[in-house]
Amino acid sequence: MTASFKGKTPSRRAFLKGSIAAGGAVFGASAAKAAEPDPLITEVQDWATGLGDGVDATPYGLPIKYESDVIRRNVEWLTADTISSINFTPIHALDGTITPQGCAFERHHSGAIELRKEDYRLMINGLVDTPLVFTYEDLERFPRENHVYFCECAANTGMEWAGAQLNGAQFTHGMIHNMEYTGVPLRTLLNEAGVQTEGKWVYVEGADASSNGRSIPLEKALDDVLVAFKANGEALRKEHGYPVRLVVPGWEGNMWVKWLRRVEVTTQAIQSREETSKYTDTLANGTSRKWTWVMDAKSVVTSPSPQSPIKHGHGPLVITGLAWSGRGAITGVDVSLDGGINWQPARLAQPGTAKALTRFYLDVEWNGEEMFLQSRARDETGYVQPSKAQLREVRGENSIYHNNCIQTWWVKPNGEAENVEVS
Amino acid sequence: MTASFKGKTPSRRAFLKGSIAAGGAVFGASAAKAAEPDPLITEVQDWATGLGDGVDATPYGLPIKYESDVIRRNVEWLTADTISSINFTPIHALDGTITPQGCAFERHHSGAIELRKEDYRLMINGLVDTPLVFTYEDLERFPRENHVYFCECAANTGMEWAGAQLNGAQFTHGMIHNMEYTGVPLRTLLNEAGVQTEGKWVYVEGADASSNGRSIPLEKALDDVLVAFKANGEALRKEHGYPVRLVVPGWEGNMWVKWLRRVEVTTQAIQSREETSKYTDTLANGTSRKWTWVMDAKSVVTSPSPQSPIKHGHGPLVITGLAWSGRGAITGVDVSLDGGINWQPARLAQPGTAKALTRFYLDVEWNGEEMFLQSRARDETGYVQPSKAQLREVRGENSIYHNNCIQTWWVKPNGEAENVEVS
Repeated sequence: MTASFKGKTPSRRAFLKGSIAAGGAVFGASAAKAAEPDPLITEVQDWATGLGDGVDATPYGLPIKYESDVIRRNVEWLTADTISSINFTPIHALDGTITPQGCAFERHHSGAIELRKEDYRLMINGLVDTPLVFTYEDLERFPRENHVYFCECAANTGMEWAGAQLNGAQFTHGMIHNMEYTGVPLRTLLNEAGVQTEGKWVYVEGADASSNGRSIPLEKALDDVLVAFKANGEALRKEHGYPVRLVVPGWEGNMWVKWLRRVEVTTQAIQSREETSKYTDTLANGTSRKWTWVMDAKSVVTSPSPQSPIKHGHGPLVITGLAWSGRGAITGVDVSLDGGINWQPARLAQPGTAKALTRFYLDVEWNGEEMFLQSRARDETGYVQPSKAQLREVRGENSIYHNNCIQTWWVKPNGEAENVEVS
Repeated sequence: MTASFKGKTPSRRAFLKGSIAAGGAVFGASAAKAAEPDPLITEVQDWATGLGDGVDATPYGLPIKYESDVIRRNVEWLTADTISSINFTPIHALDGTITPQGCAFERHHSGAIELRKEDYRLMINGLVDTPLVFTYEDLERFPRENHVYFCECAANTGMEWAGAQLNGAQFTHGMIHNMEYTGVPLRTLLNEAGVQTEGKWVYVEGADASSNGRSIPLEKALDDVLVAFKANGEALRKEHGYPVRLVVPGWEGNMWVKWLRRVEVTTQAIQSREETSKYTDTLANGTSRKWTWVMDAKSVVTSPSPQSPIKHGHGPLVITGLAWSGRGAITGVDVSLDGGINWQPARLAQPGTAKALTRFYLDVEWNGEEMFLQSRARDETGYVQPSKAQLREVRGENSIYHNNCIQTWWVKPNGEAENVEVS
């Protein structure tokens, strides 16, 4: 299987020409159409018959109405209330790596609040030489950085612990987004306040009613954490923490505190609700995995998938998906068509970058037989994404979070796909 | 002047502490406030007093209402009608490099039309072995690529030929956007049809009433041109050519044909309206510059700028802007505070990538004196962005397009900025 089109020219070209000769550029057209007129006459794109919208029509644009199904979706039965709930990025319908803010998944513990820049304050306190309170305008005066990072909820793919559940990449893997953030390194603000030698952790909290407080080791806080105010170039959307959120690259989304209100330097972890009763996983022996901050290497085929079935006939098929690792850059993705028996290297659209989504493609000729599609990522540390069986062996059956198992889509001869488990 | 914050810690930290000691984290606060209570008590961020919006509130989100001024804007007197006109990206208010589709500039010659994927057809004809017509679904079956590229209208900054005109980076430099495109290389489709040896050019046209036909040398068409269907991960917006537009990296935006309908392989250029009476520049000797496809290296300070004045007092100030080149990657940007007498290197947020926007920063201590802010980009070919005087010397005074001159903002002691020319 070659990755480039050129290597496949003969069959693909023959296929396309055959299709056209048979009556149209529509693939899978019946051979019975052979007697129809030249499609080049009937199938040419019509010209517009009138003028379109002027440049004053949409000062801020939205997707065209034909794409109204490419939206965030929540799952009603998943939580008791939409105020403390999640919705999912439509990753099955996206390509590339950037997630537009408008369809990037949300997770709130007490709803998305409205906070004006003018009213915004960020306190740095605790074990610092000088406690400080910054306004939004203050933050804009510190040197900024720009980085593309993924943000993944620790619960992403969590339903899969219990077996193949939700039918669609949006629902199994859509608690993730990937944006270009602009912000001030947290270390800059901590240095400004002067961290005292006893300080070993920071406790970060938001201004929403839940506060969503989390403890972060000082080493991470001084490394690549950003106090961010822009995503994909523009202000954070309300639901993403306007005007300021924390960006904790590679670490679970719950720590990316929105409406960031306070950073306290402490001697030890606070042991807050969000890091004790939540965001921990009970193992088979009854103890809990805790401080499971890093999101390990993971990948998923986004198309074909249950929400993105194959609608065309046999022949050329683009298999595509996303891979990511909280430990660094993705160095490779393998794809299996037969449930993990044989693997072939996918093509990375661009070289992987640290803690950001990487798009992969595998261009195949599909003969119409069923497939058990899987993808398997590896990162620059050499870590390889495990199977569901391997994960369960180590973690038991009681977990909710940090499921980075290999996902399987059963693609049927009719092109429809289903979430399944292979043993 | 150092680029990193650490090198500036003493003065900045002293400044911040001084500010807080004087009565608040608000910079520029009067010293008369010194007797006020500890700001850490009065200025802490309030907790939300209730719940926010649930995750079902915004299936597809928009910017928060407080950002309602960060929108595309057109200039009423610039064109006779908004149907054949332009609006401008609010670059003065953005950071990073990605432009959200919703506020990315539009240019139409007969308005933005609505075209369904189901109805879409792309013809490849002319000097090819087999004329082909592709459906949208066909295009999805070819190997895809992902690239971030800028798209700049040839007329961007065009008003500056006549001197400092429009007051704001949005209006002087906002005919530009930068997105991650997903598409099929045009060469793949041309190879599919089989380009005949006499073929030396392609003529590309859109389905809108203007057709906006342009000729492109075959060499470029076979190089990095994309037949794109996604931007920043999602479908192209209507106003950006849904469902399919051409992406012609580094070349003037007029060639990035939207609602792409047909690609004809020809022996020579068509000499269409858009490449003869338009998108050419009359020189002093009466002849016209033509085939000025490439957008040369250029940059602009986006903040401070007329629409983004300095609102805080003296001390730390972030100067930021964008740089780009149609010939490759940006390798450096210099910034001048005194109208081009002295220059200092800006910090690039990330290493420049070919034919894409690069964000630069210069972190300075502003003493409140007036500045004549300029930026000067250079690219990997060694080309250096020229002054307005240098451009006029070569091109005369009759041009409209391809003005990549150094821009000057006069920043006054009160922080307001104005578009000016320096001799």
